[in-house]
Amino acid sequence: MSRKIVVIGGVALGPKAASRITRMDADAEVTLVDAGSLISYGGCGIPYYISGDISDYQQLQETSFHMVRDADFFRECKHVNVMTETRALSIDRKARTVLVQTKDGEQKTLPYDKLILGTGSTPRSLPIPGKELANVFTVTTLEQAIRVKEQISSGKTGSAVIVGGGLIGLEMAEALADMWGIETTIVEMADQIMPGFLSPALAKIAHRHLAERDVALYTSETVRAIEGENGRAARVVTDRRTLKADLVILAVGVIPNDELARQAGLLCSDRGGIVVSKTMQTSDPNIYAGGDCVVIENLVTGKPGYYPLGSMANRQGRVIGTNVAGGRETFEGGLGTFIVKIFDYAFAGTGLTLPVARREGFHAFSTQVMMPDHSHFYPKRDMVALEIVVERPTGRVLGVQGASRNGDSLKDRVDAVAAILKYRPVLADISNMELAYAPPFGSAMDVLNAAANAAENILAGRSIPLTPEEFIRLWENREQEKLLCIDTREWSNAEPYVGRHPDFWKNIPQGQIRNRQDEIPKDRKVVLVCNSGARSYESQVILHQAGIMEPLNLQGGMGFIKELGLDPKDE
Amino acid sequence: MSRKIVVIGGVALGPKAASRITRMDADAEVTLVDAGSLISYGGCGIPYYISGDISDYQQLQETSFHMVRDADFFRECKHVNVMTETRALSIDRKARTVLVQTKDGEQKTLPYDKLILGTGSTPRSLPIPGKELANVFTVTTLEQAIRVKEQISSGKTGSAVIVGGGLIGLEMAEALADMWGIETTIVEMADQIMPGFLSPALAKIAHRHLAERDVALYTSETVRAIEGENGRAARVVTDRRTLKADLVILAVGVIPNDELARQAGLLCSDRGGIVVSKTMQTSDPNIYAGGDCVVIENLVTGKPGYYPLGSMANRQGRVIGTNVAGGRETFEGGLGTFIVKIFDYAFAGTGLTLPVARREGFHAFSTQVMMPDHSHFYPKRDMVALEIVVERPTGRVLGVQGASRNGDSLKDRVDAVAAILKYRPVLADISNMELAYAPPFGSAMDVLNAAANAAENILAGRSIPLTPEEFIRLWENREQEKLLCIDTREWSNAEPYVGRHPDFWKNIPQGQIRNRQDEIPKDRKVVLVCNSGARSYESQVILHQAGIMEPLNLQGGMGFIKELGLDPKDE
Repeated sequence: MSRKIVVIGGVALGPKAASRITRMDADAEVTLVDAGSLISYGGCGIPYYISGDISDYQQLQETSFHMVRDADFFRECKHVNVMTETRALSIDRKARTVLVQTKDGEQKTLPYDKLILGTGSTPRSLPIPGKELANVFTVTTLEQAIRVKEQISSGKTGSAVIVGGGLIGLEMAEALADMWGIETTIVEMADQIMPGFLSPALAKIAHRHLAERDVALYTSETVRAIEGENGRAARVVTDRRTLKADLVILAVGVIPNDELARQAGLLCSDRGGIVVSKTMQTSDPNIYAGGDCVVIENLVTGKPGYYPLGSMANRQGRVIGTNVAGGRETFEGGLGTFIVKIFDYAFAGTGLTLPVARREGFHAFSTQVMMPDHSHFYPKRDMVALEIVVERPTGRVLGVQGASRNGDSLKDRVDAVAAILKYRPVLADISNMELAYAPPFGSAMDVLNAAANAAENILAGRSIPLTPEEFIRLWENREQEKLLCIDTREWSNAEPYVGRHPDFWKNIPQGQIRNRQDEIPKDRKVVLVCNSGARSYESQVILHQAGIMEPLNLQGGMGFIKELGLDPKDE
Repeated sequence: MSRKIVVIGGVALGPKAASRITRMDADAEVTLVDAGSLISYGGCGIPYYISGDISDYQQLQETSFHMVRDADFFRECKHVNVMTETRALSIDRKARTVLVQTKDGEQKTLPYDKLILGTGSTPRSLPIPGKELANVFTVTTLEQAIRVKEQISSGKTGSAVIVGGGLIGLEMAEALADMWGIETTIVEMADQIMPGFLSPALAKIAHRHLAERDVALYTSETVRAIEGENGRAARVVTDRRTLKADLVILAVGVIPNDELARQAGLLCSDRGGIVVSKTMQTSDPNIYAGGDCVVIENLVTGKPGYYPLGSMANRQGRVIGTNVAGGRETFEGGLGTFIVKIFDYAFAGTGLTLPVARREGFHAFSTQVMMPDHSHFYPKRDMVALEIVVERPTGRVLGVQGASRNGDSLKDRVDAVAAILKYRPVLADISNMELAYAPPFGSAMDVLNAAANAAENILAGRSIPLTPEEFIRLWENREQEKLLCIDTREWSNAEPYVGRHPDFWKNIPQGQIRNRQDEIPKDRKVVLVCNSGARSYESQVILHQAGIMEPLNLQGGMGFIKELGLDPKDE
């Protein structure tokens, strides 16, 4: 007798699991139910559809060979029965049935041997007046995205306010500002964009670049209301200002759709999300769940983590498909690996940022490096800023984040760390990592190796670091702090700084520091600087060997400081 | 009392180890000896200096901050005493001294507490007449490279023959042909370029691209002699032809310089190379060695491996420096990770190729996939061809190799595998690998995940593969083989093929194959094809489920076949 499989949710996980099952088990009768009318689309592509990079929304629904993944496609090519605009109302676990309601209001009972929940997530709501106005969107579904694009294509959108500086908010900012020339503002409650994803130092690189591209950003600011005119949003009111807005995008995160599972008595996390085992089974072994509606183990902390990402859903869908069809595969957990394009920059990371690591109870530190992605002597190259997060005193690597204008290059370094995080690597595993090398694609000592080396020097006490952020705070208070920057570069590099700030900037090239150590004053706060942090480190080592322990070594050098939008020589 | 360290060899490993020691141990007295006049240069950059990408050879000797790493630099900035043009003659292990001879012929005895051998490698010689002629070069040293560039800059080089189709030979081919317009020929003894580094299928992509860029390639051909005129090479004679040559580059590999170590009685491999422990110590614990002169463990096979790569030398140099200065670090072994740029393509890999895996005794298979590096709906994307090598029946991943026009993207996928190979991953580790994803930089199911998925389907017996190479052999003998290609794409894709080869090509779109399975002939050799291998796989599964077991599934699809320079629709 053929087995009946019901799949609830048709965006990413559901279709993947359903297709995998019919490939592995010819007799399986698979029915996929979705509340929407459009299924199996690349939701991550929505910002690029809105920007115009992708001209037609159907492209997001197409396979790589340009077939639209609609109900007919799934029936014919995947042998999966699809019911769109059909809502799952409840699960009867004892009877093993799902009660659904079609768009005509008709209710049906679908029996199952195995049930798969891919119910996804819902945009987090804001408790503010005006959020129901006509031109306020969340852009988490293709249906919403089509309406946003209709509005901006009609040409009546001069200004937009995006509430939330997370991944989707930032991608939307680029989509609106870059291609459509819409005056775009981001309002973020935290004191930086992408909190939890980027350290403050890397976030500042993004802040500067957003300003360069004329996107206004207000951090540490809370939206109080959306004010309308004739039923349409016209202004966004924050706790500090009122912003004009012909279009409002709410992008303050998503929450897992776990109500159906909760009502059926399946174990869910207190903080939301269906709890699943490594085989992606819920507390009822006949019911599987995955994608945006579940929590899985964070492979760094060992605690539950929430990863609403299309790529995660796809891979989990395959594992569920295998298991439902009688195989046995496990999905070990998640790391929160991400990458985001913001105009000319990419930002990426995996594992924990320093603030998150500390919040999770790790005795952690981080360090920053800045180096070219390709050999420094090869003409085509971009800088890569990396921050590596390390546990003391074990040297365990907890995460890495970075920024670069070459997203492919940045992704390379982040992916290499993402690949090994589950093995609990220590710094030596990254110092000696054998990355592919040739001058057009890397350095003999790669920026990733260098980041681990820099952290190892700190861990061993050879390098006493000053982070770029701490440097900025010192610089802003240089009078009170009695700051003196010793520039260990050659005179040609140091000259503009010494000339502009003779009281705070002094040049001693690294090669001369051994013989000129008497010039280091005892009554000043001394910071050693160079371009990248390499010569300042070597200078620090020489001074330490001579018993001069006070000078700090600026991590990532002036290269990193300039990326933050500060350059003392121009002040 | 300060410890005396002598370092022999000043290109990559030696300077790195020396500098690390003085940073960690202020009292160490470090002397570096090198037979050449130029030290501490990026030897891997030589092809780019010859091409003109890098205008001045000194750039290869410069730090990223444009300081030339000469003897003065090492003395002032690194506190290392450098003796150039000084040859190490012998080691007296009992007395702990090294006998050296300066360029004036003067002999000196250098005492050491610890000795470091970074003696590098020597180009493999060919036993052929004419190799001593004036314009025959090996380009493994900067001194040689300067002479090559002088010759080609003087404008008298119309044609060049490169003997050896390995990494350096190929980089040199691009340097000579692309920038200087020199008529360039590569002669390779094996039946493909980069034997041992690339599978035959991926090598064929490079063969086609070399032809596109007018580089002549003769494989399975042996050079017998270089013929001269007036003391200069004029012709290269192979076992099959005579080639005009104003310039001859011998690039047939390198052999480790282990004579000094052998004479001192240190343990060396029968096949060449100093044997070192994981702490990079030779059989004499007071003597360390690393870089091109040593053999280390291959982390996939567990056997000795030889990796003459600048990046390897740099990382090993740091480990040696740490250990000599009293720390303790280990270098676990090597994988042979590589990347090479050949005109518009990059080729890269890590671990074992299929031929090498089989030679090493693994019961291995491989499969090919071809997918875009970025989302298929994102406008900016390049195809990535990957071949994954897997052990049966364990599913252990032994290596991955690939080709793409976007080298950064290819490197990303190869590096992620390189990062985990030492942990002995199985296919599920790569199927579920959490790579950074956003449409501008990847796919929700990445090409690397897809490669592991395809291999898993083969391992499980669901996919019965036909490799691109096997397809080409079948196609070339299609009459005798009674070949019939069932094109599972839509009619618009299949039409040109069916039209050109109606007897050998038939269209049944994947969505129709369930209902049209009776059209599959029993008396033909049937191969299912599509663009990428995805629809042909699904078609195969449907046919298998219906009991039709014979059809094979073309791996990598027509996309891969076209990359090999074959397209049946144009024949």
